[in-house]
Amino acid sequence: MTFDLVLDHLRQTSLLLQIAETSHWDQETVMPEKGASLRAEQIGALAATIHTRQSDPQVMEWISALNEAELTPFDRCNVDEARRQYDKATRIPKSLAEASAKAASEGQVLWTEARKQNDYAVFAPALKRNVALKREEAACLTDGDGGLYDSLLDSFEPGAETAEVEPLLESLRPALVSLRERIQEKPAPTALSGSFPESDQLDLARFVAETMGYDFKAGRLDISVHPFSSGTVSDARITTRIDEADIQDCLFSTMHEVGHALYTQGAAHPYLPAGDYCSMGVHESQSRFWENQIGRSQPFAEWFFPSLKTRFDTLNLRGPEELYAAVNHVQTGFVRTEADEVHYNLHILLRFELELELIDGSLETEDLEAAWNMRFERDFGKAPPDARLGVLQDVHWSAGLFGYFPTYSLGNIYSACLDEAMRADLPDRDAMVRAGETAPILDWLRERVHSRGRLLAPQDLIAEATGKAPSTRPLIDYLETKFGALYDL
Amino acid sequence: MTFDLVLDHLRQTSLLLQIAETSHWDQETVMPEKGASLRAEQIGALAATIHTRQSDPQVMEWISALNEAELTPFDRCNVDEARRQYDKATRIPKSLAEASAKAASEGQVLWTEARKQNDYAVFAPALKRNVALKREEAACLTDGDGGLYDSLLDSFEPGAETAEVEPLLESLRPALVSLRERIQEKPAPTALSGSFPESDQLDLARFVAETMGYDFKAGRLDISVHPFSSGTVSDARITTRIDEADIQDCLFSTMHEVGHALYTQGAAHPYLPAGDYCSMGVHESQSRFWENQIGRSQPFAEWFFPSLKTRFDTLNLRGPEELYAAVNHVQTGFVRTEADEVHYNLHILLRFELELELIDGSLETEDLEAAWNMRFERDFGKAPPDARLGVLQDVHWSAGLFGYFPTYSLGNIYSACLDEAMRADLPDRDAMVRAGETAPILDWLRERVHSRGRLLAPQDLIAEATGKAPSTRPLIDYLETKFGALYDL
Repeated sequence: MTFDLVLDHLRQTSLLLQIAETSHWDQETVMPEKGASLRAEQIGALAATIHTRQSDPQVMEWISALNEAELTPFDRCNVDEARRQYDKATRIPKSLAEASAKAASEGQVLWTEARKQNDYAVFAPALKRNVALKREEAACLTDGDGGLYDSLLDSFEPGAETAEVEPLLESLRPALVSLRERIQEKPAPTALSGSFPESDQLDLARFVAETMGYDFKAGRLDISVHPFSSGTVSDARITTRIDEADIQDCLFSTMHEVGHALYTQGAAHPYLPAGDYCSMGVHESQSRFWENQIGRSQPFAEWFFPSLKTRFDTLNLRGPEELYAAVNHVQTGFVRTEADEVHYNLHILLRFELELELIDGSLETEDLEAAWNMRFERDFGKAPPDARLGVLQDVHWSAGLFGYFPTYSLGNIYSACLDEAMRADLPDRDAMVRAGETAPILDWLRERVHSRGRLLAPQDLIAEATGKAPSTRPLIDYLETKFGALYDL
Repeated sequence: MTFDLVLDHLRQTSLLLQIAETSHWDQETVMPEKGASLRAEQIGALAATIHTRQSDPQVMEWISALNEAELTPFDRCNVDEARRQYDKATRIPKSLAEASAKAASEGQVLWTEARKQNDYAVFAPALKRNVALKREEAACLTDGDGGLYDSLLDSFEPGAETAEVEPLLESLRPALVSLRERIQEKPAPTALSGSFPESDQLDLARFVAETMGYDFKAGRLDISVHPFSSGTVSDARITTRIDEADIQDCLFSTMHEVGHALYTQGAAHPYLPAGDYCSMGVHESQSRFWENQIGRSQPFAEWFFPSLKTRFDTLNLRGPEELYAAVNHVQTGFVRTEADEVHYNLHILLRFELELELIDGSLETEDLEAAWNMRFERDFGKAPPDARLGVLQDVHWSAGLFGYFPTYSLGNIYSACLDEAMRADLPDRDAMVRAGETAPILDWLRERVHSRGRLLAPQDLIAEATGKAPSTRPLIDYLETKFGALYDL
């Protein structure tokens, strides 16, 4: 039966994609430094192989012989994905796909080196190449009915359009600015301080991950320059990073990646695309939910404080209330991954507008650092002191990821929608968190999000899970309520 | 030019083979336990892809259009390797190659579990499947001019024939038995004892590896159930294992794998087969050379003793002479990787004769444990107390490696040939080792072995390197001289 042939083809392709992901994980965590250039070639060779598979016209012949009406929704979704892969692969020439993969791998090496030297100029040529290749890719993908950026965004958030996403995200700005201005007049809480040895931080991070339901028999936690999650349902790995003077980076990075990994570990199928995640926005809703709605909540601080105090006797804070205030300190900082919930989406808006301009050609990579610094000062009131705290802080552009940043804000919007609906379903959720019992929370997400695969469009998945079309209202309500109470506004 | 097409094809295939190796390294060292079955599928999918490439008739068309006489020896060797890959790949059907790769991956999972449970029966069904698949493969490869085993041996030792290797290895037996009998009448040296924490062992293993010239910027050292080496010139990784009551296992496993990795790090080319290693026998000559001719030598003990004593104050030995005697204690043990140089090749002979019978069908996997125990008692005077110390001790058969074991003894034979020739070239080698200066030794091997690739057949490479055709005489002389002095024979 030709449908089995289509499924087998998809399965084999997914397995090769998984190997590419392991190879990438290896590069970011354990690979010795001299391995970098050969690794780039290896990843390029594998990408070329995958591209050949995805552009195989035989698969389209099998599909055309199917009676799609007879298929289950799950199977129909797989057929749609095969068609989508074919369309994308045949529009992008094999040589371009290979060059992009290689440039992305080499770009990350140069980005790491540039961060080490704290010098954007070291990274700029690699970024220039990445942008040029992305523009070429985008031009191949567009039908002329959308801009270049639309076709990149679609890779991460299927069906999303710049013309809709841009005003949606921009609509957050007035509320965030207002909230931030009111908070800035208030006194700052006691900042968290102490000395936090690496091995103890990792140990605590593992404990938190396990409490949130992360299965270490199907994953592992390592250290990398930029935290990330990768893998499959049975091998969903996460990384974190350590600053011995500040435990918050490690802790909240871990919770964030745990949120991604819980989604991965709860996937409906290990290698068919219909069982895979819905979109990056939905993926991000999971990471932000566990990081913010749980990890930065008052009941979590109550549960967590004793574990923190026991492990680190140099901790200055005296109780859960001080911990809750400290981890929600609203302060204008330079680094997105360390940003509080009020500033976070302003960070995203900055990157979103810059990459829109890089892709439409109105901003040159040579001018990116200056543009970053100028607009950062415009939005945040001060310019970054150096490249590491500015334009070099994120891995995305070095890896050729353009169109990805807006999915972070979509994720924040979705996570607030899910949070509101979950609270209605689980009225004693705070008590659960206070007791470190998160299983009902994870079950709720498993049922309504994780197990649903990509059968629905992102906004439809959220609408079904919450009973309402997604909007920015729950996020704004959540922030106003939380920070209103914290800062006595 | 068609030759460039052939080279590019070989290069891409090598890069995919390298990715498969990284995937295997990952499985053995860092993969979470639930990842096992999906990993087996991933490796199967990649093996199928590689098989498709290697059996591509287009490559044979390109080759037939070449004027091979115009090529350099290096390029001619690459063309020969492309032909060899094609021949092997087209004789073995894709489905069989995929099934073998998957069975090997699953076999290792069951072998690990069987070792944990100390129960051969847990592993037996996987071994039965591996043997059946190997027999099928061997039948595809043979032209009827050699037995099934010959075609398996050829994969590891190109051109070697069972009819020549079997009597060669058997010829070692009388000399080894005579030596062993004479030693057994002598008093045993003081055994090495003490307490050796894991992290200190790893630290010392790293120090020894570096002293031997291993480049950690192009490699790494990890822990696995069975030590192994893998990778490429710029990323040649090794593993070891730790027993906190016995530091010898970690130390000599490390030196052994360092020997392999030095060969890999010294390869003539990162991805063309002509620049790759010559044969497994030659590879093994490198591991055994650093483990035995250097690591178990009297001057090495002199250099090493202070480092050992400083790190482990519970060490019972009082000086380098006691260390030298202890690490060369000739004693009938059960485990190949812990065997002294006198017993080692008897271990290999046992496995060699058992796998010859498994492959020719005269021994069933159900009877393997009984056959192992019976013949072990015949050769070593006592039966293993359990499966872990007996039939379950080696990873090879679980990974589908049949025809590999004899290359260990070929390696011992070759390493003794190299040792004899090197001593003539470097008369003050003992003084170098005593000072921890191994660079001239590594340079000698780099020039005569590592950089030569696979342009010559194994025996011709050794003959060119040493000025003499390889024979068992240098090994027997070396053992008689060394152990004659140690045991006052």
